[in-house]
Amino acid sequence: MEAFLEEAKASSRVLSTLSGSEKNRILRAMAAKLREEASAILEANAEDMRNAQTNNLSAALKDRLFLDEKRIEGIATAIEQIAALKEPVGRVLEGWHADAGFKIEKVTVPIGVIGVIYESRPNVTADVGALCFKSGNVAILKGGKEAEHSNRAIANVLQSVLEENGLPKAAIALLPDSSREGVAKLIKQERYVDLIVPRGGEALIRYVSTNATVPVVKHDKGLCHTYIDEDADFEKALGVIVNAKCRRTGICGALETLLVDAAIAEEILPRIAEAYAAQGTEVRGCERTRQIIDAVAATEEDYATEYLDNILTIRVVDGVDAAIAHIAQYGSQHSEAIITENYTTAEKFLNEVDASCVYLNASTQFTDGGEFGFGAEVGISTNKLHARGPMGLNELTTYKYKIYGNGEMRA
Amino acid sequence: MEAFLEEAKASSRVLSTLSGSEKNRILRAMAAKLREEASAILEANAEDMRNAQTNNLSAALKDRLFLDEKRIEGIATAIEQIAALKEPVGRVLEGWHADAGFKIEKVTVPIGVIGVIYESRPNVTADVGALCFKSGNVAILKGGKEAEHSNRAIANVLQSVLEENGLPKAAIALLPDSSREGVAKLIKQERYVDLIVPRGGEALIRYVSTNATVPVVKHDKGLCHTYIDEDADFEKALGVIVNAKCRRTGICGALETLLVDAAIAEEILPRIAEAYAAQGTEVRGCERTRQIIDAVAATEEDYATEYLDNILTIRVVDGVDAAIAHIAQYGSQHSEAIITENYTTAEKFLNEVDASCVYLNASTQFTDGGEFGFGAEVGISTNKLHARGPMGLNELTTYKYKIYGNGEMRA
Repeated sequence: MEAFLEEAKASSRVLSTLSGSEKNRILRAMAAKLREEASAILEANAEDMRNAQTNNLSAALKDRLFLDEKRIEGIATAIEQIAALKEPVGRVLEGWHADAGFKIEKVTVPIGVIGVIYESRPNVTADVGALCFKSGNVAILKGGKEAEHSNRAIANVLQSVLEENGLPKAAIALLPDSSREGVAKLIKQERYVDLIVPRGGEALIRYVSTNATVPVVKHDKGLCHTYIDEDADFEKALGVIVNAKCRRTGICGALETLLVDAAIAEEILPRIAEAYAAQGTEVRGCERTRQIIDAVAATEEDYATEYLDNILTIRVVDGVDAAIAHIAQYGSQHSEAIITENYTTAEKFLNEVDASCVYLNASTQFTDGGEFGFGAEVGISTNKLHARGPMGLNELTTYKYKIYGNGEMRA
Repeated sequence: MEAFLEEAKASSRVLSTLSGSEKNRILRAMAAKLREEASAILEANAEDMRNAQTNNLSAALKDRLFLDEKRIEGIATAIEQIAALKEPVGRVLEGWHADAGFKIEKVTVPIGVIGVIYESRPNVTADVGALCFKSGNVAILKGGKEAEHSNRAIANVLQSVLEENGLPKAAIALLPDSSREGVAKLIKQERYVDLIVPRGGEALIRYVSTNATVPVVKHDKGLCHTYIDEDADFEKALGVIVNAKCRRTGICGALETLLVDAAIAEEILPRIAEAYAAQGTEVRGCERTRQIIDAVAATEEDYATEYLDNILTIRVVDGVDAAIAHIAQYGSQHSEAIITENYTTAEKFLNEVDASCVYLNASTQFTDGGEFGFGAEVGISTNKLHARGPMGLNELTTYKYKIYGNGEMRA
């Protein structure tokens, strides 16, 4: 492990000196080679699929694991799209002259060595490898055991292109010891590793956050709310809340608890019930909700649950302050929305709700790097520091100060 | 502790809604009240000074602890200066329209609840309290035991002004249990605390970094280098390196190892020796250095030592690449400098050296929030993420995305 990490650290110095056009040329070569080597990757994937069969993996997991020619084409295209993104390293964020005379430039630089822990989908190996490479970072990848042959085959292709271009293989590497102990070691190597990004189940994220000495950017749960204010446009409200709940129920930006202003509850709740009934959504409701529409009785636990399923809790609240208080108590600081036409109410909500993304009159399912225009996504951070919300290429950089002097001495 | 932290968290919601002018008015009231209450503060300080005497504290520590009318005036003025700084909350960092139609604004917001652990100087209580307040953050302050009465007296003044203005006292609070166990608990309260800033000795910083589950912004050591290139202007070089070493030897931006290009070593080393002799600096040197000037033989350990004293190691290296390699091996990523008139050599050094501040032709002692123009400083971060280098008011904020839609639903 020590030797592996030494090599990773040394490789990060090499990557940080590459120009944007060199990196993009190499990324395009990786895409081309993935297409060329499709049959080797499919063979490796077939082995993972056989093991999945033996181990009785669920149909959903098997679908996430499965590769065919079309999916490999998708992986290659994604790398070409990453190559086409704007260079994230060397952006001058600010510049000024200090009183002493010298010029200060605040410039983006790679973070260094990034460990990413993820599950199932083999395309993540290529995606994250390419994103880290483009941002000048060494990627240490730890995929799921169920995808190990596919991940190995994809990493082999990326590494062979690195070597053909005189670059160290260690720049995009799979963690050699992919056991739980391997992860336990990795997250304590702050001398070598600059950032750990865990993507996956709650248990993994909790384990990593609690035990890491390396800084962690978490991709944790989203317990998202939408509040329909008395000044809402009902048509917008009904469209947005159905989309926020039902478009995909299993993503972190999905709506879990709908808050309805008491002033309009009698008028809008029947229409809400009807809209969700058409989607087969199970509706649970507070006492006041159940006086107006049919609903399973909601418990305290419902307010604290991220269903990730076609289930919704509705609570009637007394205005925007009560909505903000509910969200402060139960929310996960991920994505929260208000539906209103009232400027002052809207700004109050957007300003006072503490979450990475706060929406006015739009679906919380938009919390996504692609939708935000970042071109690609490492994940969605639930951290408050460094990166918050959708994490794109820019969030894979940090900064340094370059100071241009002329012999200045401090008084 | 739990109740105290609940209150801190609740107070952070209140602070985040204050306008800049309200915060500044309250800060000026704090400054005024510190002047009014000077005698109570001096009495408390006298008690700390008596204990310092009993406990045989060093003269340096006693000087850091000591307050008089003039120092209290300094504390009050510093708060007024913080009040005069630009509002850090609500800055729009970026704004754009997403393809789906809505507008996205990336806006600065307070971090939340910040725990700051520090030693000796009572003025830090007022400084950090004021900086956190101005940036909308709750401050949980844990000062040194030796300053407990002074810190308590200063915190009392700040809290009484908060209360006079209808704000919760918990917004600027001393950690109730200031024992080692209290700190051990605080750094694991990620539900309530958003950031821990340890300022102090290496042991404290290592303890906090290793054991915290709350994110930490470290203020660790600086093992700083200056490299004199063959294309250096010798006059600038001699001025800058004496300033970088001798202006103050005990600060983290002080020069510890001087690297001299072999091409000019014979010519410049005698002048360097002379310049440092005039300052009483003890010079240690590598073999090649000692062939040219008198110096104690430097060991491997010298290269790895932050002296914080009037001692300097000199190493002769073969050009800028060797200088960069030495810094990569021994540096602490704090402040590094090159002296050269050559554009290409300078940019190579500035780009390839991994440190928060990289200087061309200037003293590394400039790494300081005041010198950078930040107006005030929480400390100097040696983190790579969130804040790097001097940390001012802006580094006490994070961001959120405010999304302004018109009924958008995700496809």
